[in-house]
Amino acid sequence: KRRDSFNSDGLLSGILRGDLQALSSGITLLESNKKEDKAEAQKLINSCLKYSGKSIRVGVTGVPGVGKSTFIESFGQFVVEKGFKIAVLAIDPSSEKSGGSILGDKTRMNQLSVLENAFIRPSAAGKSLGGVARKTRESIILCEAAGYDFILIETVGVGQSETMVNSMVDFFMLLMLAGAGDELQGIKRGIMEMADALIITKADGDNLIKARRAKKEYENAIHLFPPNENEWIPKTLVASALENYNIEKTFETIQSFVNQTKVNGSFTNNRKQQDKYWLHETIADTLMTNFYSSERLVEVIAEVEQDVISGKISSFEGAEKLMKIYNHE
Amino acid sequence: KRRDSFNSDGLLSGILRGDLQALSSGITLLESNKKEDKAEAQKLINSCLKYSGKSIRVGVTGVPGVGKSTFIESFGQFVVEKGFKIAVLAIDPSSEKSGGSILGDKTRMNQLSVLENAFIRPSAAGKSLGGVARKTRESIILCEAAGYDFILIETVGVGQSETMVNSMVDFFMLLMLAGAGDELQGIKRGIMEMADALIITKADGDNLIKARRAKKEYENAIHLFPPNENEWIPKTLVASALENYNIEKTFETIQSFVNQTKVNGSFTNNRKQQDKYWLHETIADTLMTNFYSSERLVEVIAEVEQDVISGKISSFEGAEKLMKIYNHE
Repeated sequence: KRRDSFNSDGLLSGILRGDLQALSSGITLLESNKKEDKAEAQKLINSCLKYSGKSIRVGVTGVPGVGKSTFIESFGQFVVEKGFKIAVLAIDPSSEKSGGSILGDKTRMNQLSVLENAFIRPSAAGKSLGGVARKTRESIILCEAAGYDFILIETVGVGQSETMVNSMVDFFMLLMLAGAGDELQGIKRGIMEMADALIITKADGDNLIKARRAKKEYENAIHLFPPNENEWIPKTLVASALENYNIEKTFETIQSFVNQTKVNGSFTNNRKQQDKYWLHETIADTLMTNFYSSERLVEVIAEVEQDVISGKISSFEGAEKLMKIYNHE
Repeated sequence: KRRDSFNSDGLLSGILRGDLQALSSGITLLESNKKEDKAEAQKLINSCLKYSGKSIRVGVTGVPGVGKSTFIESFGQFVVEKGFKIAVLAIDPSSEKSGGSILGDKTRMNQLSVLENAFIRPSAAGKSLGGVARKTRESIILCEAAGYDFILIETVGVGQSETMVNSMVDFFMLLMLAGAGDELQGIKRGIMEMADALIITKADGDNLIKARRAKKEYENAIHLFPPNENEWIPKTLVASALENYNIEKTFETIQSFVNQTKVNGSFTNNRKQQDKYWLHETIADTLMTNFYSSERLVEVIAEVEQDVISGKISSFEGAEKLMKIYNHE
């Protein structure tokens, strides 16, 4: 028996009113893999689409231990106190296995989650990163229709999910610990160059001097990076969630980024590029998912992969072999 | 009438003898889009495969004007003088339009190209970057079978080709000019973090002091990057092709990289990962090429793209629409 709540018309009016329960159910509908839910989900997204687009979308990444949740909690509370509504979504491709390692397994963000104008949603589950990313991007549309002004997308920064996140946000923050070297262990190379802001966290107590030194070093490094197309020069900040230090500055940095990029047109242009990117990314994801879930291939893929790795056949011959089986040739 | 030279058996024996003409014809065969050539090309690759794998594959990138060809010429001459054979291949996705902007349109590397143990081949032509990359990777196999010890893959560093190149080489060099800022204009973000060595070129005359200062700055920046899995710390060098300065040092840097990564196993492991990557990349490329060259879609893609960019439909709905047309649903 279908749940009554999964009626897109009912959900839409609830979401537009800003009803948290309706928003939650709407996202659950998007995440559903049931065939009968998919058409309803598509209807819901389409009707939300015209109310969407007005938020500032912010990506937040950093390795476990960097203090992402405490930072987001401080930042979120500040944003809410300023009179805005904030939603926090997470992309965690490992959540399928771990049961949601980013937000699911810990009772975190207690202070933020009780606020009326804050909405926190653990990672979408999904078989592929593409699938998870897609659902997160659809969730953004629902959150925007529900009137959220800031939407934070959280990732762990160790995998490929950052490129995905970078392709769905306006502003991308990388959280780091002071003390060069070890703290970057695990952060994927290339992520640093993607960041619009580097925030050195836990800049309190004995750590403050170290954090300021790190800030200086990163600032020097950043001016060696290739310039951004949008002419934004990535900012480096030290911040402490514990002492509420530079949380406001982070907010102001995002605001000045938005102002600057809206004036020079790159804000809108970036979103259009992202829409285009996601059109083709979704096509690619669908083609790949169909291919790799093909029953005819399931037994041979590992075999061909082994032959390629051992140098028995070239990767191109391996691909051709699999393509032929896939196409019934 | 088929050219006689395009007989894979004849080509193979020529290639194994190190015959330049046979190698050239072999690569032309790989690049051919004629149906009747494809099976022959596949046969040639397969028979070369068991003689391949013994070279050091080096990626060289940098914006136009950085002095890539003069650097490669100096480096190549040094390598040949050391008693090795060197092949230079180029990936230039723009070559289709420009008629080969990397190597084709200029009479460059005159001194290197006349050497018996040097082989220079302009960019493979192809409709997609994936196709060009694939042909380059197959050319590597042929060059290795022909006994080349070093294979340089050259790109311009402004597009997506670097990720491709990085996925087919053992060692990746980024060439840069001294003077922070402008010279990076055009270099894609993220490439710097991919480099195993940063070479600051044209370090001669008045430029030397500036180059050394830049080297210092980049060195400081590099230690802030996330560490490489293979434990290699990227090296920074100043070099002058004009004065043959630090060309030997570049060679030694590559050697010490190879030694270190062969000892810790990451050299072989990286190649296996690359083989696997190319298996799946080729599958993706084939699926995408089939999709985007579908006659049924050719008229609607631009239309759907426009609807997505203007926010009329979501990117996901657009993708679904195209998928349905593609699948005759």
